[in-house]
Amino acid sequence: MSATDREQGAMRRALDLALQGPRGVNPQVGAVLLSASGEVLAEGWHRGAGTAHAEVDALAKLPAGGARGATAVVTLEPCNHTGRTGPCAVALIEAGVARVVYALDDPGEASAGGAGRLRAAGVDVVSGVLADESRQLLDSWLTVQRLGRPHVTVKWAQSLDGRAAAADGTSQWITGPDARADVHRRRAEADAIVVGTGTLLADDPALTARRPDGTLYPHQPQPVILGARSVPDDAAVRRHPRPLLHRDGENLGGESENGPSLMAELRDAGVHRVFVEGGPTIASAFLRAGLADEILAYLAPTLLGAGADGADRPALRVLGVDTITAQRRLTVTAIERLGDDLLIVAHPKETA
Amino acid sequence: MSATDREQGAMRRALDLALQGPRGVNPQVGAVLLSASGEVLAEGWHRGAGTAHAEVDALAKLPAGGARGATAVVTLEPCNHTGRTGPCAVALIEAGVARVVYALDDPGEASAGGAGRLRAAGVDVVSGVLADESRQLLDSWLTVQRLGRPHVTVKWAQSLDGRAAAADGTSQWITGPDARADVHRRRAEADAIVVGTGTLLADDPALTARRPDGTLYPHQPQPVILGARSVPDDAAVRRHPRPLLHRDGENLGGESENGPSLMAELRDAGVHRVFVEGGPTIASAFLRAGLADEILAYLAPTLLGAGADGADRPALRVLGVDTITAQRRLTVTAIERLGDDLLIVAHPKETA
Repeated sequence: MSATDREQGAMRRALDLALQGPRGVNPQVGAVLLSASGEVLAEGWHRGAGTAHAEVDALAKLPAGGARGATAVVTLEPCNHTGRTGPCAVALIEAGVARVVYALDDPGEASAGGAGRLRAAGVDVVSGVLADESRQLLDSWLTVQRLGRPHVTVKWAQSLDGRAAAADGTSQWITGPDARADVHRRRAEADAIVVGTGTLLADDPALTARRPDGTLYPHQPQPVILGARSVPDDAAVRRHPRPLLHRDGENLGGESENGPSLMAELRDAGVHRVFVEGGPTIASAFLRAGLADEILAYLAPTLLGAGADGADRPALRVLGVDTITAQRRLTVTAIERLGDDLLIVAHPKETA
Repeated sequence: MSATDREQGAMRRALDLALQGPRGVNPQVGAVLLSASGEVLAEGWHRGAGTAHAEVDALAKLPAGGARGATAVVTLEPCNHTGRTGPCAVALIEAGVARVVYALDDPGEASAGGAGRLRAAGVDVVSGVLADESRQLLDSWLTVQRLGRPHVTVKWAQSLDGRAAAADGTSQWITGPDARADVHRRRAEADAIVVGTGTLLADDPALTARRPDGTLYPHQPQPVILGARSVPDDAAVRRHPRPLLHRDGENLGGESENGPSLMAELRDAGVHRVFVEGGPTIASAFLRAGLADEILAYLAPTLLGAGADGADRPALRVLGVDTITAQRRLTVTAIERLGDDLLIVAHPKETA
């Protein structure tokens, strides 16, 4: 049995409602309760970890017994998990809901199984309705579930010959305005932006995501500074609209007895997408640790070479490759011309 | 007055004849002599420095007086210069040629002026007939005239992050078969191929231009080895179909009291196109000397970084850039995907 037109319409509405919730540890989910005759009884959405799930949010808007015989339309399979809230499957059963239409199966090990529980209780269950739309909405959250950590983009700018700066360290305007605008657009899609104290002290970046006219994008990534050195009181990043996170960067993603890794900490803070801006030390550290799901290499059409005194400023340093068989092969997924510059988008071949 | 259809046809034939001569110090030129009624009286072409020019070659095939009243169709303006041969303009006048149709003006300072001399002698002169075709035929020779030296292509292969090899020096198969085939095709268009003794001793390259099946292209570049170290008796390059030129590489293109520069020597040997294959020392030396008209950077989709011990194998080394304002900006003219690899074709912005 498939979903009716009314249920399809209700699912579109539920997807819109889902967007009202925050991107975070929990998925963005929306729900609409329909009467047996197809009228909207109530709407709900999830407002973040610790608050009611979407179905329960909708049920709460009805008087006792108000959902008896109703159809619940939800963008994600109702959970079967007792966390900070009870299992939604049970809540729907207890409310007397007769039918549940949902978009996407719950990918969680602990939370999945809601559909089975509903069916076992005699509830009519239809799945896969507008599943692609829900999957797209939850793309970054689903990635976190799959990886067990946030998705990491490592970005750097380099001359064609792989240098981040000239031998004396100067590097202004290697890439042009189109490349810089592209970086800011992508910053605005990230939940956290990471730089090392070296870059912080050298460039004093604001780490905001700005439009070419200087105004801020609505969504700003949280600034994360890595390194032992302290952040100056007058650093531009201290005026960032979101609070600064400063860690030593010793444990990016591994297991450690000294508390959670940076990745675990960011995941538990609801970060889905991390944008690693550099500089060379930090970019290399993420690559070395295997923590680069996406690579953005902005190539400026210029050659810098090394200094006559042997000084060299490569955009990437030690990656843990000591011999050619250990090379980090990439799959190039896009090549874009941004003004005079090139953007090469790639990901590690191992995870292709 | 413009050229007749017969003259146009004769010019096409003259362009074909020109190709029978060698690419070298002198341009490839062809000539056809037509009677007043448009019949072909004789054909000629230039066989290389020290031999008759095309017009004179054609005239020599007629008995005395046989060219009286004829039309000479020539792919390049008849010369006005007494070198190892006399001025062609004079030879045509003395032969009683009534009309001269040519394609391209002679760009030489010493040799130009033939058209004026012919007109002054009352000869009908038409220029610019199939000039584009002649220009294309003479493209590399015209470039040598303009630059005063051969055209230089500097080629290198690198990882995305600018390394030619892993920290321990291993580098096999960084780029794939499509990129290597592209290199061989381009080798076959060059008159000389340059590597340093470092590359020679490390890789023992044959320096031939080969098809993917291993057979040789018809045109082979002359191998040029640069460096103080000697070429081993059993080096593969000693089996190259063309003789080896070995120089110390101390003076690539400058003025020197110690004899001609490499560029001058190659130019005087009739070399139009030089293909600099590397490795890093040689490629960097040509770039540093400003001797790179075309740059071919083959980028393999891989990251190598530096070694944990600090060893680093960048594809380019010292380029004479000590600060960002001295950077060598490039104009990218093409980006090609060759299998998994990228080819970036560029030239220095200064010569854009």
